[in-house]
Amino acid sequence: MAVETPLLDTVNLPSDLRKLEKSQLRQFADELRAEMIDAVSVTGGHLGSGLGVVELTTAIHYVFNTPEDKLVWDVGHQCYPHKIITGRRDRIRTLRQGGGLSGFTKRSESEYDPFGAAHAATSISAATGFAEAARHQKKDATAIAVIGDGSMSGGMAYEGLNNAGHLGSKLVVILNDNDMSIAPPVGAMSAYLARASSSGVYQGFRSFGKQLAKRLPKAVYKQLAKAEEYGRGMVTGGTLFEELGFYYVGPIDGHNVDQLVPVLENVRDMKEGPVLVHVVTRKGAGYPPAEESADKYHGVAKFDVVSGKQKKGTPNAPTYQKVFAKSLIKLAETDDRIIGITAAMPSGTSLDMFADVYPDRCYDVGIAEQHAVTFAAGMAADGMRPFAAIYSTFLQRAYDSVVHDVAIQNLPVRFPMDRAGLVGADGQTHAGAFDLAYLGCLPNMVIMAAGDEAELVHMTATANEYDEGPIAFRYPRGEGVGVDLPENGKILDIGKGRIMREGTKVALLALGGRLAEAMKAADTLEAQGISTTVADARFAKPLDHDLIMRLVREHEAVITIEEGSRGGFGAFVLHFLAETGLLDTGVKIRTMHLPDIFQDQDSPAKMYDTAQLNAEHIVERAREALGMESNVVNLRG
Amino acid sequence: MAVETPLLDTVNLPSDLRKLEKSQLRQFADELRAEMIDAVSVTGGHLGSGLGVVELTTAIHYVFNTPEDKLVWDVGHQCYPHKIITGRRDRIRTLRQGGGLSGFTKRSESEYDPFGAAHAATSISAATGFAEAARHQKKDATAIAVIGDGSMSGGMAYEGLNNAGHLGSKLVVILNDNDMSIAPPVGAMSAYLARASSSGVYQGFRSFGKQLAKRLPKAVYKQLAKAEEYGRGMVTGGTLFEELGFYYVGPIDGHNVDQLVPVLENVRDMKEGPVLVHVVTRKGAGYPPAEESADKYHGVAKFDVVSGKQKKGTPNAPTYQKVFAKSLIKLAETDDRIIGITAAMPSGTSLDMFADVYPDRCYDVGIAEQHAVTFAAGMAADGMRPFAAIYSTFLQRAYDSVVHDVAIQNLPVRFPMDRAGLVGADGQTHAGAFDLAYLGCLPNMVIMAAGDEAELVHMTATANEYDEGPIAFRYPRGEGVGVDLPENGKILDIGKGRIMREGTKVALLALGGRLAEAMKAADTLEAQGISTTVADARFAKPLDHDLIMRLVREHEAVITIEEGSRGGFGAFVLHFLAETGLLDTGVKIRTMHLPDIFQDQDSPAKMYDTAQLNAEHIVERAREALGMESNVVNLRG
Repeated sequence: MAVETPLLDTVNLPSDLRKLEKSQLRQFADELRAEMIDAVSVTGGHLGSGLGVVELTTAIHYVFNTPEDKLVWDVGHQCYPHKIITGRRDRIRTLRQGGGLSGFTKRSESEYDPFGAAHAATSISAATGFAEAARHQKKDATAIAVIGDGSMSGGMAYEGLNNAGHLGSKLVVILNDNDMSIAPPVGAMSAYLARASSSGVYQGFRSFGKQLAKRLPKAVYKQLAKAEEYGRGMVTGGTLFEELGFYYVGPIDGHNVDQLVPVLENVRDMKEGPVLVHVVTRKGAGYPPAEESADKYHGVAKFDVVSGKQKKGTPNAPTYQKVFAKSLIKLAETDDRIIGITAAMPSGTSLDMFADVYPDRCYDVGIAEQHAVTFAAGMAADGMRPFAAIYSTFLQRAYDSVVHDVAIQNLPVRFPMDRAGLVGADGQTHAGAFDLAYLGCLPNMVIMAAGDEAELVHMTATANEYDEGPIAFRYPRGEGVGVDLPENGKILDIGKGRIMREGTKVALLALGGRLAEAMKAADTLEAQGISTTVADARFAKPLDHDLIMRLVREHEAVITIEEGSRGGFGAFVLHFLAETGLLDTGVKIRTMHLPDIFQDQDSPAKMYDTAQLNAEHIVERAREALGMESNVVNLRG
Repeated sequence: MAVETPLLDTVNLPSDLRKLEKSQLRQFADELRAEMIDAVSVTGGHLGSGLGVVELTTAIHYVFNTPEDKLVWDVGHQCYPHKIITGRRDRIRTLRQGGGLSGFTKRSESEYDPFGAAHAATSISAATGFAEAARHQKKDATAIAVIGDGSMSGGMAYEGLNNAGHLGSKLVVILNDNDMSIAPPVGAMSAYLARASSSGVYQGFRSFGKQLAKRLPKAVYKQLAKAEEYGRGMVTGGTLFEELGFYYVGPIDGHNVDQLVPVLENVRDMKEGPVLVHVVTRKGAGYPPAEESADKYHGVAKFDVVSGKQKKGTPNAPTYQKVFAKSLIKLAETDDRIIGITAAMPSGTSLDMFADVYPDRCYDVGIAEQHAVTFAAGMAADGMRPFAAIYSTFLQRAYDSVVHDVAIQNLPVRFPMDRAGLVGADGQTHAGAFDLAYLGCLPNMVIMAAGDEAELVHMTATANEYDEGPIAFRYPRGEGVGVDLPENGKILDIGKGRIMREGTKVALLALGGRLAEAMKAADTLEAQGISTTVADARFAKPLDHDLIMRLVREHEAVITIEEGSRGGFGAFVLHFLAETGLLDTGVKIRTMHLPDIFQDQDSPAKMYDTAQLNAEHIVERAREALGMESNVVNLRG
């Protein structure tokens, strides 16, 4: 190992940490930071967030009695230092690798991860659940949620605060504020006030006020309470949280363990209800290349520790994301109704490219998918052409907005649905597995899936042109397959697929990103003397009935292939065949889809191998359907 | 008509209303109220909410330039007065009836309904969309959202405020506060302050402050701004909204048109960004029987106008909701891990019965379904047995919480899923149509559906006993079918169905509430000489593979029947048969499910008729599958 970590070496679990003197915590945090940087330089991953919470992680585990006290990290990508000091240091260099540690918190990994996360804004609700469970079980345990200021734009966070404040739950919410969007710059004065406001004396005053309240007229007590609130709100900006029923403490310098530890000790010893501790940190703190980077090394590839230089591979083809953004920019040149909307993923969706060209026509609404979709619906209701670009997995958060605000009203919101299918290192929480099922069951929806990046150009153009109702188009994460890109997208016929190659015995009907595998499988089948048709369905809804009937009539077997769960495209094909009586003919139908499990992270290729959705599996399935023996040895050759 | 309405008779559209003198608005509002009471006495429906906004509705349409200005009613069940004065008075006595007016706002009904609603907390997002669309189109139009204080517990409302405040959109949010949960009691003083705070003079001061800001050091301006905010916040409690970027006006007496009109005129003429107008109203106002009722006549049956007495029919059987609640109460007697959770539907779900017995073990978290589910997940992670009782349609709002916080972590949250299938007068926005599809695609989920109310007793017990992961059980709205109820529920075998009657030619495989129709259909088929098996699947997931294989092997045709969309139970059966090669045998399979349309309100029986899911349709489908002619005349006999 490159770094010397004498103190860290004595700590396997938080109980070891608690044996250190407070005066040693500064050095301990420095060692923890160095260890994390070294580990992530090997694995890649979320670096900036973890760097920002090294001291906070140290202080929390030092002060609170984890794992009896339940520590819930929001999103979880800041959890690497936490993993290192909760018994997982020996595996920290397997982060995000196949078979290795998850890049997020995960219940099955450790009792120190009482709740998993990877989507934002869930921690307060979960911690409130732990707090109330402890109360029912008469356990003297504290629930702690650590939530970033970015997550605070999510409605769920507000719902959690609103309910916990009402309940008076024994809950500590630590607001990890790392971009100054809420707090004023931290100075000595506010640090002093923070210590003062969380001290025993101040608590006493507050309790005294509550005692008084029992005897005073309500109106007078309210004035008193307001005056106290004002006294803190004026300097700290915490009145919003106070109005939701929280006791507010802060802001506090999140990199100063000498401040953090006593404040958290005060908070721990409070006997009253929910507390919000406002901690100000710097994303990327303590590692100059990260601090100096615009995105604070939010997510990084493997890198050189000394120079900070990331080792990114050379791409073989443009990403789907960039292809989409460029297509939209081009369309927007001549169509001023086009609006881009992202929910805190401008870079991930490449909508930042669109925003660079059309800053006034691009909205980043924050982590607020529900609002993003209904906001788009309002725009669409007034004649705009909004593109709400949201990952498949995050659109789940906006499901009712899609149903109630878009589909029922048949409003032409466009849904570029990024990260469809399996996504690799981000694992199960980020897989775009369910959208074909959860959108396909909705009346009025049109759903396309891009078989390659040229198709995405056409689908972006088609979605823009389609004003009759909602239309979604899904595409994978990352690089395309390398086909030539058209100058302009062509408008596709709604609900019409295309034949890629003609054969006579078996038909492979692919939807979306598995098209290339189907083509490969067809090569293998042809080489084995099995004449194979490949069709690209293009649309999961509406189905191309003519195409499906033709495939069924002209082939012995038809195999549907999609990178989505059961209940999606294949199910719709089966419903159609059952309801028209076409199944009665004895045609051999097989549906290939993602398996009914949540798959752990790995390389996308390996994940699809586990899912049995690669070319060889298609070949095997076709042979099985035709009543032929499997021929695995040849297939792998 | 029972009431005399000389002024109202002159008003067909808001343009007519604007011809009245301000001094006539009080009488106009009284007439509007009387007309609404009379109409709802005939139709039944949401009465209390509409009564509370008679004056507000009048003032908004008097002051704002609807329909160019976009008025978005949150939830929409307070929209009856709005409908009366926007060209729909002639049809107001068809509210919630088949072929009549919807009980909610609906785009297809009127240009005065720019956005439909029925679920809560969507209005601010939609109105922000309208505001931004108007800006892009350079239209001088204002977007207005009217949202109740109950809806303000929904995270979406917060997401909307947070984004609109950031954008500075030209938006008016009218907070219709009708239960005092936010406001202090309204008096002359606060009404005065409200007028003052929204007057031109006050505006001028504020603008002056902004001018100053350009020249003053930032810190000094912030102190100024704080001082101003404090000045209002101290008396009005509006600082929460101010911190989110809104200009706050209020509280205002929402039943005093003489106050409402000038305040809204001031607000209309403001040139700056978003404004929140805090209006205090009384649910049920102006109709003594409603005002005196505990629920303020939130939803009523037909009633006698003079006495207020509702004409409720005599129930034939206990409702599914009461059966569920009683079962849970019984189980909780001996299991202190059981927790009831509702998202603002204690009465609708009958969880209020549970709360009466176990007040400390029942949580109403407000309109906050996401929080409800993740809060339950936190509890389940610590060994409790939470029952998150949420309507099927509202669980859509919590979809990502179900996926990310419950299913991925395989936590044993129990989901009693109320209002499965079609719901009658509430129409398309409340149908429980999609849950089998959107939950069935998720790994780890167990899904049951109750074929009758006795089954619901068993399923409640089974869900309680099942600790291995999430388990949902769906059941219809309203009365059961009248079967005897068991004293105690029995624990069902997970993934096992049951045979209801044995036959040899056709098998009807029903899931959930259509079981009775399947039994009726079997009687008819038998009478026609067609030997019929009826099976109750009980589980949509996991499937009873043995049962399905047996039905397929022993019958010429198998018909699946469910009150859910495509992509649900029938799809899972088809997937299973396709993937095991059982389809190849040429067995005749048909899937019966809800049609791929959003169905307008009607009686449930008629809605199922339109959906072709009644006994006669099952008979027809069975005959068709068997290659027999349809025999409709006999079937209807």
